[in-house]
Amino acid sequence: MAIEVLGLDADDTLWHSEDGFNRVERRFAELLDAYTPEGVDPYSHLTTVERRNMTLYGYGAKAFTLSMIEAAIELSDGAVSTTTLQALIEEGRALLRRPVELLDGVHQTLTDLRASGYRLVVITKGDLLHQHQKVAASGLADFLDAVEVVNEKDQSTYAEVIKRNGIHPDGFAMVGNSVKSDVLPVLGIGARAAHVPYHILWAGEHIDHDESIDVLDSIRDVPGWLDSFTG
Amino acid sequence: MAIEVLGLDADDTLWHSEDGFNRVERRFAELLDAYTPEGVDPYSHLTTVERRNMTLYGYGAKAFTLSMIEAAIELSDGAVSTTTLQALIEEGRALLRRPVELLDGVHQTLTDLRASGYRLVVITKGDLLHQHQKVAASGLADFLDAVEVVNEKDQSTYAEVIKRNGIHPDGFAMVGNSVKSDVLPVLGIGARAAHVPYHILWAGEHIDHDESIDVLDSIRDVPGWLDSFTG
Repeated sequence: MAIEVLGLDADDTLWHSEDGFNRVERRFAELLDAYTPEGVDPYSHLTTVERRNMTLYGYGAKAFTLSMIEAAIELSDGAVSTTTLQALIEEGRALLRRPVELLDGVHQTLTDLRASGYRLVVITKGDLLHQHQKVAASGLADFLDAVEVVNEKDQSTYAEVIKRNGIHPDGFAMVGNSVKSDVLPVLGIGARAAHVPYHILWAGEHIDHDESIDVLDSIRDVPGWLDSFTG
Repeated sequence: MAIEVLGLDADDTLWHSEDGFNRVERRFAELLDAYTPEGVDPYSHLTTVERRNMTLYGYGAKAFTLSMIEAAIELSDGAVSTTTLQALIEEGRALLRRPVELLDGVHQTLTDLRASGYRLVVITKGDLLHQHQKVAASGLADFLDAVEVVNEKDQSTYAEVIKRNGIHPDGFAMVGNSVKSDVLPVLGIGARAAHVPYHILWAGEHIDHDESIDVLDSIRDVPGWLDSFTG
């Protein structure tokens, strides 16, 4: 069956995101360096705190900022200055304020896909407010039939989202930069998916897998990939 | 036209919420008392910081926790201890972990409304993850046709939500504890709405208005109010 609806991940698929978090993580490590005991890696402790908070805080820059503050207090055994904490709060705010920078080829590819008659749906994790703000700032809103911000990208979420949008799995394909979130659960519900890697992958999205999956170099390759299912 | 779909606000309409935030605000004021300059009200400064952060952080306990940390550092001119900041982080986490306590009459009323054939849709602001967790913990999920977590409850949001759910304004009614968020914008799109007050209203939801609006003492009065539109 031909694909009718294309699901698109947002962060690191449509626009840059993880490079910003990465930059703030490096800044965190710099700011905390003087407070951190010998042999302890500030970045690794931050990741531990983020994972510990995941079920309660979920994804996004606010959750990340709260975890930075907590990790800073723990790493320094309470000695971190409030000036440093304020700097971390500002770094988190800068992530929320960051202008949306589209990845290469995104605007043209979405223009072409719409012209070819595909329905486009963004399916993204993260903070509800921030994701909608980024869609609004991206200039892509007019191309999109729906924007679905979800808590977790697992099989049941995809099944629910495509049902809600009146889509059959046979006619649905998803592309994104995370094999764990954008590819495997979509294949699991009997739809198509392709991996479009970004140059940085957040530790929380790493997954080992044996499946042979479709990998595209760039979003520019999506139209050709979709056309391969026709006829 | 008879009402077919009932929209329900969640926090302080289906379950207790603001009393928890209120308790944490009092705890904030106690913890900051020793650090606060003469003549400054810690609660009032917290509210100022919350409002300042609203467009960037949105609603919910994570936004509130970040604003508490920021307000604490500012009120104390940086002198607040990291022990106090950790206590604030824990208070915020307790809000996220708080068990859902339904308001009186909610379970029975939703049972009755479903039995009468009404479709029920929760429309709530706040944190995406936390609101879905509360719905799951509430025991009400089986009664609900949809759960819509939105960034702002204005006319355009209501118009979009009811369109997405295939609802016509003539057949839609909304109940909730905020005149500003649950009543006026719904009346504005030509649907019905009733105010069911909760004993505390968050400062951000206060509004002056001249409209004569329907006010119900309790959610138990909703079925009778809906029936009044029939025939």
